[in-house]
Amino acid sequence: MFQKVLIANRGEIAVRIIRTCQMLGIQTVAIYSEADADAPHIKMADEAYLLGGPRVVESYLHADKVLDVARKSGADVIHPGYGFLSENSSFAEQCEAEGLVFIGPSSDVIARMGSKIESRKAMQAAGVPVVPGIAHSLADEEVAVQAAEEIGFPVMLKASAGGGGIGMQIVRNADELRKAFAGNQKRAASFFGDSAMYIEKYIENPRHIEIQILADKFGNVIHLWERECSIQRRHQKVLEEAPSPFLDDETRKKMGEAAVRAARAIGYSNAGTVEFLVDRNKNFYFLEMNTRLQVEHPVTEEITGLDLVAEQLKMAADYSLTMSQSDINPRGHAIEARIYAEDPMTFFPSPGNITKLVFPDGPGVRNDVGVHHESTVTPFYDPMIAKLIVKGKDRDEAINRLQNALSAYEVEGIKTNIPLLRKIADHPAFQQGETTTNFIEQYLQGETAK
Amino acid sequence: MFQKVLIANRGEIAVRIIRTCQMLGIQTVAIYSEADADAPHIKMADEAYLLGGPRVVESYLHADKVLDVARKSGADVIHPGYGFLSENSSFAEQCEAEGLVFIGPSSDVIARMGSKIESRKAMQAAGVPVVPGIAHSLADEEVAVQAAEEIGFPVMLKASAGGGGIGMQIVRNADELRKAFAGNQKRAASFFGDSAMYIEKYIENPRHIEIQILADKFGNVIHLWERECSIQRRHQKVLEEAPSPFLDDETRKKMGEAAVRAARAIGYSNAGTVEFLVDRNKNFYFLEMNTRLQVEHPVTEEITGLDLVAEQLKMAADYSLTMSQSDINPRGHAIEARIYAEDPMTFFPSPGNITKLVFPDGPGVRNDVGVHHESTVTPFYDPMIAKLIVKGKDRDEAINRLQNALSAYEVEGIKTNIPLLRKIADHPAFQQGETTTNFIEQYLQGETAK
Repeated sequence: MFQKVLIANRGEIAVRIIRTCQMLGIQTVAIYSEADADAPHIKMADEAYLLGGPRVVESYLHADKVLDVARKSGADVIHPGYGFLSENSSFAEQCEAEGLVFIGPSSDVIARMGSKIESRKAMQAAGVPVVPGIAHSLADEEVAVQAAEEIGFPVMLKASAGGGGIGMQIVRNADELRKAFAGNQKRAASFFGDSAMYIEKYIENPRHIEIQILADKFGNVIHLWERECSIQRRHQKVLEEAPSPFLDDETRKKMGEAAVRAARAIGYSNAGTVEFLVDRNKNFYFLEMNTRLQVEHPVTEEITGLDLVAEQLKMAADYSLTMSQSDINPRGHAIEARIYAEDPMTFFPSPGNITKLVFPDGPGVRNDVGVHHESTVTPFYDPMIAKLIVKGKDRDEAINRLQNALSAYEVEGIKTNIPLLRKIADHPAFQQGETTTNFIEQYLQGETAK
Repeated sequence: MFQKVLIANRGEIAVRIIRTCQMLGIQTVAIYSEADADAPHIKMADEAYLLGGPRVVESYLHADKVLDVARKSGADVIHPGYGFLSENSSFAEQCEAEGLVFIGPSSDVIARMGSKIESRKAMQAAGVPVVPGIAHSLADEEVAVQAAEEIGFPVMLKASAGGGGIGMQIVRNADELRKAFAGNQKRAASFFGDSAMYIEKYIENPRHIEIQILADKFGNVIHLWERECSIQRRHQKVLEEAPSPFLDDETRKKMGEAAVRAARAIGYSNAGTVEFLVDRNKNFYFLEMNTRLQVEHPVTEEITGLDLVAEQLKMAADYSLTMSQSDINPRGHAIEARIYAEDPMTFFPSPGNITKLVFPDGPGVRNDVGVHHESTVTPFYDPMIAKLIVKGKDRDEAINRLQNALSAYEVEGIKTNIPLLRKIADHPAFQQGETTTNFIEQYLQGETAK
């Protein structure tokens, strides 16, 4: 096993990773920015190094500084968490070149899956269903219009290197597409340094359901069943659960098998997630593959009893999987609610000083936390301050616990999205499993700004 | 289902019961004493009634006042929690007479199991192994000596109505027994209003392992496997876990079957616990039956996924059990540590004002809490302020999480037993499963006062 892991992240996920390292008896190295000098992950780690100023490019995204700390501290492995450098194939390559283990698949797999066009092709070749679309870069808007007319409007215009909804737009006719093309191409170029655009058939009112997989370096691949992540606002997940209230066992099984097939086909290793769109008839289509730990991994942990960070570390240390598919028998129902420091109406971040912080407790309640009782939430990073994860023997019990836990949550000094989360949890449509990606627009219109 | 439950208790267990009632949509009525005017259970309940002064006889033990509140509030059921009125058969009888449901078995079963001599007889009749001993009241010390010589020293002298170690003493020869008899008889009379004494063979260095059972009113009885509760100080449990690190599957199965047989034989209904002593050769002997929810019930909840309070309410409301023995498949390993406001060296209570309170969080951590961030811990009640429950996929993972969670726990303003709990968790003998009732004396001598 490793001696010392550098955690190239901050907030709740840095804390989460350090916890598992402590459990496995691995030394931990934290990094931090000037804005995070008081953050909990620093105190928890065995060593901590200041990287620089508050902006991510000066600190958490600064690959050379991170590698410097790895050398200085004698770390033998880097856990990138999610976001930041976690899907940066050139950083993974730099690690490989230095003989450092990067937790994730090989840099070329990261690169392939990072390109939506490339990953789409790989999935089609592996027999995994993809959304009907044009899997090559579109030269200009007239090529795009022609392609869209072939597959039929509405279509989704997408940036190949995209993420977080950037460079992505639904277009319903040729005119809209012409208007949208250049702007999104420009945004894609400026955000991702890659202007390649492609289009896919737009799936109306879909569900976003993803499959967690584990793949060791010896060709053993299993899946840990699905997570339902449809409740989103502006293409950002808000609330996730496992299992999905929508899937039947047959579809669930087919999706799991497709995800395993996908991982095998591309020589995937470590933990990963295959995201699918699922239409109302339970047809599922490959959306993208995330080559890292997901924010919502705890719901899978809760129903399987596994520690996904521990599994990542073991696979990265060349252990083979100790379980086979038949050992994975999910039990119960888990829901995660992301607690954001943001205005629940406008979704604008709400930085400030936390003056009171009381977490819910009791049976079936887990808090994964990235702040403490006197933290300052700065405007420099993602405003997620904590995750609330509840578990019940079935979905009703889990929803009940979610409602009670959200009521018991106390945060003062900053605004949070807890009022929005409560509206979701209390809504009959949510309780009946009407979880589609349009949920917030459809059911909470007027309760939030668009 | 019930409309309104009166929770005749305080602290973490009142909070715990209210939570489940909220989940089941049942209204809640809290009671409190003057010393508890700021306690969390009051705020959580739908209604709350002051009973009187801080002493338990003026409030939580005052049956008439409790029944008054039940009438006034229109409660249709009383949940007594543990301690206080929970095993008071005449209170249960008063409830029955008023047409109020008392959560527990019938008053005559409570009465029978409350007498150690009676319960011993009932168990023998049901073919449940009991500790070799004299199952009748001993008239005087010479009768006791004669009886002890028949079964062989050392013996345990016990009060029939006893509990919490009161009126109980190991005696190793006739002289010691003569010296001990009158004093313990007197203590039993003054504590329990019943001076009846009996003796049992003393089991050297035993383990205390108990079986949780559920019995509905239609004769369906199942067990939820065992809890290992051997780590005690002064006959009070400190740390409990499930499953037991000591039992093998065969013994485990036999103990479960014996507990179900015991429950059937006495016409038991509701949740209950059959406690056994287990000697080093895995012989097990009936110790006593607790006709109420146990403090340590969460470890069973964690490995079975059940909510025991919900099961209690359903059984009391004449629902039949919805699961059979084969549905109970424990998974993982859970440990509970009781957090006491007490000096870790002397075990003296440490009342005072809590000035800081930070609970551990993250995966596998549950906090059942009876105080808040500015609570005053008074000297009037049991000093347990919270319970920390950890869960892992196996015992090693659970112990690791326990160690980390205890390190993360922050309580200021009062002393707690957390340093003692950390010594237990860190001790190689505990980690190897050397859990006997002498653990603290044997391994932590010199670290605590006796």
